[in-house]
Amino acid sequence: MGRTSDARDRLIKAAKDLTYARGYTAVGVKDICEQAGVHKGSFYHFFPTKRDLLLAVIDAHVEWLNGIVAEAAQPELPPLERIRRLFILIGDFDEQLMASTGKMSGCPFGNLAAELNTRDEVIREKIDGVFDEAAGFLEQQLIEARDAGDLENVDPSAGARAILAYLEGLQLLAATRNSPGLVRSLAGGALRLAELGGDETRQANVQIH
Amino acid sequence: MGRTSDARDRLIKAAKDLTYARGYTAVGVKDICEQAGVHKGSFYHFFPTKRDLLLAVIDAHVEWLNGIVAEAAQPELPPLERIRRLFILIGDFDEQLMASTGKMSGCPFGNLAAELNTRDEVIREKIDGVFDEAAGFLEQQLIEARDAGDLENVDPSAGARAILAYLEGLQLLAATRNSPGLVRSLAGGALRLAELGGDETRQANVQIH
Repeated sequence: MGRTSDARDRLIKAAKDLTYARGYTAVGVKDICEQAGVHKGSFYHFFPTKRDLLLAVIDAHVEWLNGIVAEAAQPELPPLERIRRLFILIGDFDEQLMASTGKMSGCPFGNLAAELNTRDEVIREKIDGVFDEAAGFLEQQLIEARDAGDLENVDPSAGARAILAYLEGLQLLAATRNSPGLVRSLAGGALRLAELGGDETRQANVQIH
Repeated sequence: MGRTSDARDRLIKAAKDLTYARGYTAVGVKDICEQAGVHKGSFYHFFPTKRDLLLAVIDAHVEWLNGIVAEAAQPELPPLERIRRLFILIGDFDEQLMASTGKMSGCPFGNLAAELNTRDEVIREKIDGVFDEAAGFLEQQLIEARDAGDLENVDPSAGARAILAYLEGLQLLAATRNSPGLVRSLAGGALRLAELGGDETRQANVQIH
């Protein structure tokens, strides 16, 4: 049983690394099995479809994200500082990745969403759920900041979604520039978005043409 | 020559529609030729490689973007209002796409970047150039807003990059929710990011751990 369980983990690790580096569609089951050192027959024992493996890969990325979020959410930090720290930690991750591989890969969730949103409802909904969790963390910080008197008249739900969008976009632009640093250098923008108020979100809904 | 030119345009149109709906890797030359009604032999007459066609497809998406930017950049509007209008127009495009296809596809440039950044330097640099053009438009509006006294102590270059990241991220989150509306409803955040100052971008570069 030890070896069986190990093969499953090796498949997930190989698929995680390969899809993060090259995307999902471009990586075949054969590539994953070769990198994992697992026979193709065993693959289908663990994962009836390649999509089942991708769902496990997304869970593995969530574990990584949860580690970063836990490191950002230091109770001794003011809530808004925890958000800024999240940006800095992700920027640090990018810099380490760049130093070790020479390639920026961006956000694993954003990349899979961009590639598969229109083609796979199960994956789209899975990643939408990850984004909801991340927005929930951000919203909690905004609520705490508001309750501490650091923010006034804000819409924590809208602000959280705005900050998450900003974080996703910064990672995408940084990866497209193949240059780390953007997420760190523009982290201050997240604190601007934290101040987003209900008035603004209503105003923006007015048709202007 | 008329028919020849038409075949090339049909290939670009088919590839543009198919890759926007399904991604680049998942769409084969065969699919594109079938949808365009063009023989595979003719394909390679016009485009030595599938990547050459993708470069033409990106140019076609740029034409679409330029049309939207021109519509946003009404001289009679205050510069910041032009930026908000750009968000509203892209939100409108999303809503029309959703109404006609039932699927949100997000930003064509962002999607291709997320899928291909690590695999194709030519495509990555091409899209990086498109992002530069878009950031240039935004920066120009921020400079005009500053010169008109609407913004103080801002860093137009950083602000432009922040707003572009925000726009990309909103489109990604909206596509992952498969629900239009986010780009419009959170457009006000762009005006918050417009206020991003040099102090903040410097502060964010300080290591905090």
